[in-house]
Amino acid sequence: MIAVDWGGSSLRAYRLDGDGTVLDRRRSNDGALACAGRFGEVLSALIAGWDDPLVVMAGMVGARGGWIEVPYVQGPADTAALAAGMLRLDTSHAAPGLVARALWCVPGMADRTTPVGDVMRGEETQIAGLLDALGPGTHTVCLPGTHSKWVRVSDGAIASISTAMTGELYGLLRAHSILGHGMTAGEHALDVDAFDAGLECSRDPAGGLLHDLFGVRTATVFGRFAPTALPSYLSGLLIGHELQAALAGLSAPVHLVGSETLVERYAHALQARGIAVQRHPEALAAAGMHQLAKARGLV
Amino acid sequence: MIAVDWGGSSLRAYRLDGDGTVLDRRRSNDGALACAGRFGEVLSALIAGWDDPLVVMAGMVGARGGWIEVPYVQGPADTAALAAGMLRLDTSHAAPGLVARALWCVPGMADRTTPVGDVMRGEETQIAGLLDALGPGTHTVCLPGTHSKWVRVSDGAIASISTAMTGELYGLLRAHSILGHGMTAGEHALDVDAFDAGLECSRDPAGGLLHDLFGVRTATVFGRFAPTALPSYLSGLLIGHELQAALAGLSAPVHLVGSETLVERYAHALQARGIAVQRHPEALAAAGMHQLAKARGLV
Repeated sequence: MIAVDWGGSSLRAYRLDGDGTVLDRRRSNDGALACAGRFGEVLSALIAGWDDPLVVMAGMVGARGGWIEVPYVQGPADTAALAAGMLRLDTSHAAPGLVARALWCVPGMADRTTPVGDVMRGEETQIAGLLDALGPGTHTVCLPGTHSKWVRVSDGAIASISTAMTGELYGLLRAHSILGHGMTAGEHALDVDAFDAGLECSRDPAGGLLHDLFGVRTATVFGRFAPTALPSYLSGLLIGHELQAALAGLSAPVHLVGSETLVERYAHALQARGIAVQRHPEALAAAGMHQLAKARGLV
Repeated sequence: MIAVDWGGSSLRAYRLDGDGTVLDRRRSNDGALACAGRFGEVLSALIAGWDDPLVVMAGMVGARGGWIEVPYVQGPADTAALAAGMLRLDTSHAAPGLVARALWCVPGMADRTTPVGDVMRGEETQIAGLLDALGPGTHTVCLPGTHSKWVRVSDGAIASISTAMTGELYGLLRAHSILGHGMTAGEHALDVDAFDAGLECSRDPAGGLLHDLFGVRTATVFGRFAPTALPSYLSGLLIGHELQAALAGLSAPVHLVGSETLVERYAHALQARGIAVQRHPEALAAAGMHQLAKARGLV
């Protein structure tokens, strides 16, 4: 089968054997947000030459405004519940390379256990690839990113979701706010002292994030850090505040899933509070789609 | 004398009589951030025809990158300390309409009583116009805005500052984040129910601001509010989190200084928590500059 991890800004395809082992992989920058009206052509071109009849997709491709809107499955949801929410696309009028294939899309997941609720789309598939390894009991999974997900897994089912807008806010503040004025542009190596100072500041209950963010401006005015270290201070503040809110109800170790750079920052921040972590590779999505295809009886 | 309130994005001039009463006023959109290299010409044109020999300015015009950098006065600071920090500009080579005048600029104020510290520039002058009315004892003054200032005044001196980036974040999130996608553009009348729901959500300690902000997205996905009400929900969340952090050490009533629209929102949010407020007009800056000119012996 072919597993397609199609996020808002990225597209990754994996060719899997019968056990779910990755045989080959391809990627492109055609994220789902930029593919309206041409999803079929983009996918057909990406998987050309792979003749597998089954294609399973996950991520923003299944959101409203994506290729097909696959309704959220309401939690708690295990592999069977997520698999039952999968929808098959009608490929009878699709691009030539897709007509003869069976094309399925995984649902997102909604959590209505709080008054406001929460949602995710794509991360549920990564977690589906992790459930066997987690086993019974209660586990905390953190998937840092643009919208960081803190997920509680209980006895093989995804029980609750809490999203933090940490990554998006970091990007916004650097690009568009007064805080970006004092910083040098571009990404720099993490300045650990500045990052730790941001983490430390976030633990002071007197401040609050809205005040602590202005502290980046104050630090600029007072010349507390080099301009190249200010992004690290901002990152520490934001990740620290995210952790502060996530601590309640957390089960150690925290299972971290994501890019190596981000996972390292979160691991550092959690360990600084004495919380053990376990790292997992970002490419869990392919394993998750294989698990869901199995549960749905497609492989 | 002439009092000039010259902020980053606005310019207001007041002609005052000997008691500080406003005789006339003019304004322009030439904020200090856009006037590099032409401060003199802009001011000369704005006050043309007013023949007063003394001009006192306050606000971002005195910041680094402004017309003249007036160093921050370190708190606690009373009227005498702020007046002592005023600097006179050299007008010998200034625009023709300024050569014969004495031009002074008020300092900003720095608070180093916390590890991170805080600063303000412009608000200290508004507060200087309020100190006589406040009288002895400890008072809390809140000046909501792009960067909301919470200021503790103690026995006639500004004792401490805490800034929250509430207004700037509100604008950023509407203009550039995923949260803006679900909202209709432009300003709408406040939707009180949505604003109150945002305030209420901010009181739940389980969330944290980074999570609560994503709740605006969740509310969009679940269709909880009309698109025209979402900005009010976001505003309630942000102002609620700002208040949550400001509550420690607050003295009631809270003295609110700012635009009528913003002051009304903050008054509503504070009163919803049983905290009394007292409203003051935004145009305190002119009174403050008159007080500082008196303390400096210029009038």
